[in-house]
Amino acid sequence: MEIKAFKILTRSPSDLSGLMDLVDAGKINPEEVVCIIGKTEGNGGRNDFTRDLSMLAFEDYFSSMLRISRIEVTDRIIFSLSGGCEGVVSPHIVVYSRSGSSSNIPSPETEKRLALGIGFTREFKPEEIGRMAQVEETARVIKQVVDQLQIDSPKDVHLIQMKGAIPSYSFEEGEAARKSGKPMRSDMVYSRGASALGAAVALGEVESKSISDDSICSDFEKYSSTASCSAKPGLARTEIMVLGNSSYWSGNLKINSSILNDMLDIESIQKTLEGLGFKLENGHLKAEDLSRLIGVYAKSEADPRGTVRGKRHTMLQDDDISDTRYSRCVLSSVLAAITGDTAVYVSTRSEHHGPQGGGTLSIVAQI
Amino acid sequence: MEIKAFKILTRSPSDLSGLMDLVDAGKINPEEVVCIIGKTEGNGGRNDFTRDLSMLAFEDYFSSMLRISRIEVTDRIIFSLSGGCEGVVSPHIVVYSRSGSSSNIPSPETEKRLALGIGFTREFKPEEIGRMAQVEETARVIKQVVDQLQIDSPKDVHLIQMKGAIPSYSFEEGEAARKSGKPMRSDMVYSRGASALGAAVALGEVESKSISDDSICSDFEKYSSTASCSAKPGLARTEIMVLGNSSYWSGNLKINSSILNDMLDIESIQKTLEGLGFKLENGHLKAEDLSRLIGVYAKSEADPRGTVRGKRHTMLQDDDISDTRYSRCVLSSVLAAITGDTAVYVSTRSEHHGPQGGGTLSIVAQI
Amino acid sequence: MEIKAFKILTRSPSDLSGLMDLVDAGKINPEEVVCIIGKTEGNGGRNDFTRDLSMLAFEDYFSSMLRISRIEVTDRIIFSLSGGCEGVVSPHIVVYSRSGSSSNIPSPETEKRLALGIGFTREFKPEEIGRMAQVEETARVIKQVVDQLQIDSPKDVHLIQMKGAIPSYSFEEGEAARKSGKPMRSDMVYSRGASALGAAVALGEVESKSISDDSICSDFEKYSSTASCSAKPGLARTEIMVLGNSSYWSGNLKINSSILNDMLDIESIQKTLEGLGFKLENGHLKAEDLSRLIGVYAKSEADPRGTVRGKRHTMLQDDDISDTRYSRCVLSSVLAAITGDTAVYVSTRSEHHGPQGGGTLSIVAQI
Amino acid sequence: MEIKAFKILTRSPSDLSGLMDLVDAGKINPEEVVCIIGKTEGNGGRNDFTRDLSMLAFEDYFSSMLRISRIEVTDRIIFSLSGGCEGVVSPHIVVYSRSGSSSNIPSPETEKRLALGIGFTREFKPEEIGRMAQVEETARVIKQVVDQLQIDSPKDVHLIQMKGAIPSYSFEEGEAARKSGKPMRSDMVYSRGASALGAAVALGEVESKSISDDSICSDFEKYSSTASCSAKPGLARTEIMVLGNSSYWSGNLKINSSILNDMLDIESIQKTLEGLGFKLENGHLKAEDLSRLIGVYAKSEADPRGTVRGKRHTMLQDDDISDTRYSRCVLSSVLAAITGDTAVYVSTRSEHHGPQGGGTLSIVAQI
Repeated sequence: MEIKAFKILTRSPSDLSGLMDLVDAGKINPEEVVCIIGKTEGNGGRNDFTRDLSMLAFEDYFSSMLRISRIEVTDRIIFSLSGGCEGVVSPHIVVYSRSGSSSNIPSPETEKRLALGIGFTREFKPEEIGRMAQVEETARVIKQVVDQLQIDSPKDVHLIQMKGAIPSYSFEEGEAARKSGKPMRSDMVYSRGASALGAAVALGEVESKSISDDSICSDFEKYSSTASCSAKPGLARTEIMVLGNSSYWSGNLKINSSILNDMLDIESIQKTLEGLGFKLENGHLKAEDLSRLIGVYAKSEADPRGTVRGKRHTMLQDDDISDTRYSRCVLSSVLAAITGDTAVYVSTRSEHHGPQGGGTLSIVAQI
Repeated sequence: MEIKAFKILTRSPSDLSGLMDLVDAGKINPEEVVCIIGKTEGNGGRNDFTRDLSMLAFEDYFSSMLRISRIEVTDRIIFSLSGGCEGVVSPHIVVYSRSGSSSNIPSPETEKRLALGIGFTREFKPEEIGRMAQVEETARVIKQVVDQLQIDSPKDVHLIQMKGAIPSYSFEEGEAARKSGKPMRSDMVYSRGASALGAAVALGEVESKSISDDSICSDFEKYSSTASCSAKPGLARTEIMVLGNSSYWSGNLKINSSILNDMLDIESIQKTLEGLGFKLENGHLKAEDLSRLIGVYAKSEADPRGTVRGKRHTMLQDDDISDTRYSRCVLSSVLAAITGDTAVYVSTRSEHHGPQGGGTLSIVAQI
Repeated sequence: MEIKAFKILTRSPSDLSGLMDLVDAGKINPEEVVCIIGKTEGNGGRNDFTRDLSMLAFEDYFSSMLRISRIEVTDRIIFSLSGGCEGVVSPHIVVYSRSGSSSNIPSPETEKRLALGIGFTREFKPEEIGRMAQVEETARVIKQVVDQLQIDSPKDVHLIQMKGAIPSYSFEEGEAARKSGKPMRSDMVYSRGASALGAAVALGEVESKSISDDSICSDFEKYSSTASCSAKPGLARTEIMVLGNSSYWSGNLKINSSILNDMLDIESIQKTLEGLGFKLENGHLKAEDLSRLIGVYAKSEADPRGTVRGKRHTMLQDDDISDTRYSRCVLSSVLAAITGDTAVYVSTRSEHHGPQGGGTLSIVAQI
Repeated sequence: MEIKAFKILTRSPSDLSGLMDLVDAGKINPEEVVCIIGKTEGNGGRNDFTRDLSMLAFEDYFSSMLRISRIEVTDRIIFSLSGGCEGVVSPHIVVYSRSGSSSNIPSPETEKRLALGIGFTREFKPEEIGRMAQVEETARVIKQVVDQLQIDSPKDVHLIQMKGAIPSYSFEEGEAARKSGKPMRSDMVYSRGASALGAAVALGEVESKSISDDSICSDFEKYSSTASCSAKPGLARTEIMVLGNSSYWSGNLKINSSILNDMLDIESIQKTLEGLGFKLENGHLKAEDLSRLIGVYAKSEADPRGTVRGKRHTMLQDDDISDTRYSRCVLSSVLAAITGDTAVYVSTRSEHHGPQGGGTLSIVAQI
């Protein structure tokens, strides 16, 4: 089995011309596409329709190319489209395709190579979101996917990309839950938080029995070092992608990851790049190495304690611009400065993704 | 003559407690304060009242301490307050005070030290703004201040901080000018552009006779490498501060500057720091050196050609958030990551401040 | 010939369920649909992708229902989707369908009935936009459509709904035009202004020879009383719909219009409703009459002179929220209060649409 | 005792020129000023510094005019400055002054006249906010002020203007409270809600024993018909003004009020005006009566159930613009259209101020 990946700049959320060109040129086989991760230029919030626009275009295209229905497209390919291209960020997608067949014999490559698998949780009830039921079901599916990928050790898993479920409920159901003393948590904050804890449990970073409903979005000492979760209102089940390095996979891609200690943590960025074999120059990627860089995935956060490196920030008291837009802009700028690439994928916020005020970082590159 | 400088974090635009503490402790003598440069947490636009709030508080305080009227305060001290603390930026002020007396004998210091002087243009008519009249008057005053500072060479000037005039005019005057074929340019864009060209002319970077009214905000090949100009609606004259290194000044401060080639230009940031004697670690300032860093001043810009490093950005097509806020956030994040300090001063946009899509950077530090 | 119209609330920009239900119920025949006018919940600006999302969904649907290509769909049906559902505005569409065949014998109805026709200008060059070439071509097409509709008098035309062309040009072409002294006007402001003047010329409200390039977006004494024009970057030709009352048409719909003198002009709203036969109660539409109200179309504007009814407004100095969003919110709120209907269509700004600070209003209702 | 009131338009949040002119002309005696209610052009949110700017200017002025300290100014005069001049709203203040002395003999006026009194609650602990302790202390102070004003019946009270306390607490205190199962409610939402219920209890609209901590911001069937409460982070005690009509007061002012059933409820606006003796024309105030209109105070709300008049609104799903700004814009526009005055005071949100989705309205006018 082998993963190929192509980074494609887009001219608008529905621009598929770059993808079509690569398909026409025979470089991407639509039958083999397994996931598409990208940034669209919306606000990343509740009224961001750029993801829907992009989805409609992708579903249309793959439905026509693969002669299957739109629903079958979304069962077959995971689309992880994140809104918010603040600052220098360039809207783009990375298309991952998988070919070959799995084998029980390690690949002849001398190094482990990128393995990628996908899974889905069962559908959640709104009252399960942000509670242990979500954590455990998420962990169960992640473990299953890791096993299927023939990854030797949890340390070889470097990115658990998730779109967390947020089942809808009525105003009345919400009021009833609130009055019962167990208010609904079916929102972005809790769905991301429980998903990240699910990843931490799956990889053995957090013990399931050491946490409870109360820990979620509260005990931030417990966190995942590889999760990257967004959440989508109306989504009934969580969509999961696992990326790691495996001896049983071939190809020329590899992935590495680090915890970000805060939004300015350039040493962790440098270390992640160096772990992929890049030699840095004055602390940044050399221009000649840029073409080897495929995907840069990170989670950002405006530190909820109100300071960064001991000094006050104002992101959380601003009623004109959301902290989600600011923190994406900050981390994207730093990543772009160190890598020289503005086509980076930063999603926010980062509950239980790395330490508070920090996040997670995963980078896919060619060997 | 000697300049002292203190960086003070603020809790709100009208928070003077940090300044008052230093005055009470005898570290700052209000009689010697010559300018205050700071960032306040507004939007940096037309309806940013945080600067007014800050000014009212400063005028009140110095009027009471120095027993002079508010108008005398603003004639004596230059306040350069810039709105917009996007992302990690921490609202702060740097208070510069000047003591001792000028001398014709070079200071005994082995190195040149920070010299700082202020000046004011005459009042402008609205029709002069953004035209050669503004460029030339601005250049004249800068040259005068540079001379007074006993700076040997234009290369020793590292920051020309200006608040550009934007005289008001009525709707009817504007219509009349437009119909006459010479539309009013009395706005932020042109006032900043002409001020920067004035700085370039003063230091010999651009020849006055090589430019005309048409060059202003049009021929961006011509630019200043040390200007940092904001502009204020209603202001009749331009306020100017010149900072450079002089053999005739003493103290423990020095200034250095660079052109920024784009918003991600970390090599220029590194070079500016190294020129001040800092030894970097993994491309960034060492934590132990942070206390020596006094003031970081830069101009930012969302590249008007629509790309950064060859990839599309969306800052100029966004009708929810101004490109001014984005570009300040981008450059501030990069500066904060390299210096480890979130109390940085970035002002935008940068017409004729460095090359298009770039800007200027000046750093004041202790020896 | 007869026009039928259905107002349908939408749950999102791509929600076609209401339309599909009416088609399934046999109330709307997709073959007869001639135009769809609606509001989507974007920002109405350059980065509003809700219109594209809606378009993609409509094109998909009609392409499938009518077994024609997407391009044929847009040649056959005009979609006038305007972003911006500020305040109480409810996202919605009004679907107009046309049936029967034209006749030279006046209809047996005692009153004139709603007639609706569409047309397209030729493709414009970017340098023609905002200049007389655009005015004259727009007027030519409008006159042609009015003739085809067998409308007796220009006074019977009550709405000229347009989507103005904004042909794209490169940064270099823009610079070249600027330097040649004839800067590009291919933007929303000029395209709307020239389109409205085209409508005024077509209906004899303004004489073509009394205006020139200089009049456009400058001499606001000249205006249309029935135009409603938005403009779309990238659109090469202007799309035009004409709605009026004709003796040769049948059905149960009628249209009326008024000039709005300012954004608070409730007397003009009342007069327009009364002209359609509504009896008002305490100055507003009676709840029992609400179902007869089909389409409410208006143009809004934040008065560029800075005051409304002699008092200062702040819409034009706000760098957090665009005046376009404010003025739509203001006029929509007033229309919703008088009609009791929040599914109103307000588009902004209104250069040459009614007097400065005012706009135009057209209402379609059942007899 | 007699109340005089002056409506003054302002040119910026710190513009006192209109007030100064009236003082210089002898129309306002600074010694008699008892409160100033006004709108400033900020965002009305947490980072709205226009109120602070305005306060600093007022404190300065009155401190100098009355030769008292700034703190004494705020103990003597209540400043109720609300940020947010969305849409057509004109920034303004209304200055109320009180003269004469109280008497036990009814005034010779044939009608009751405007009476105005102020009071302060004790300082609250953060854990009391949004709970019955706040409701009861607020009710106690209101009753006391009503008694002092010699108002015969609760029906004669027409406006209880409050600035609700929001005592600060640390991140750690917040976490501790959350973990104890009694999370902090010391925020704008709960402080406004509990203040409004305090007003309802004080006037006998709600029985104290019929509500509990759980009712606050939950049981919206219980509400005040005269409250208008904003809340200010950091404020330790609630500031209260009571306005009503009393037989013991003289002057030429009167006040009336209504519940607003929703944001488009023009009948309640009309009824409130008619109750003050205005004869409306086509449902709106006649231009000739405009000068008699002194203060228009209302609370607005984006209906939390997601619809207005049965149709969906999008104010609560918008991550670019706050619902607080939208709902103020909507109600202000409607009030301005009916009264012809853009200097209206609308504050949002309206928890327990009138029915859900509605608000309260109070109007002060000359007889």
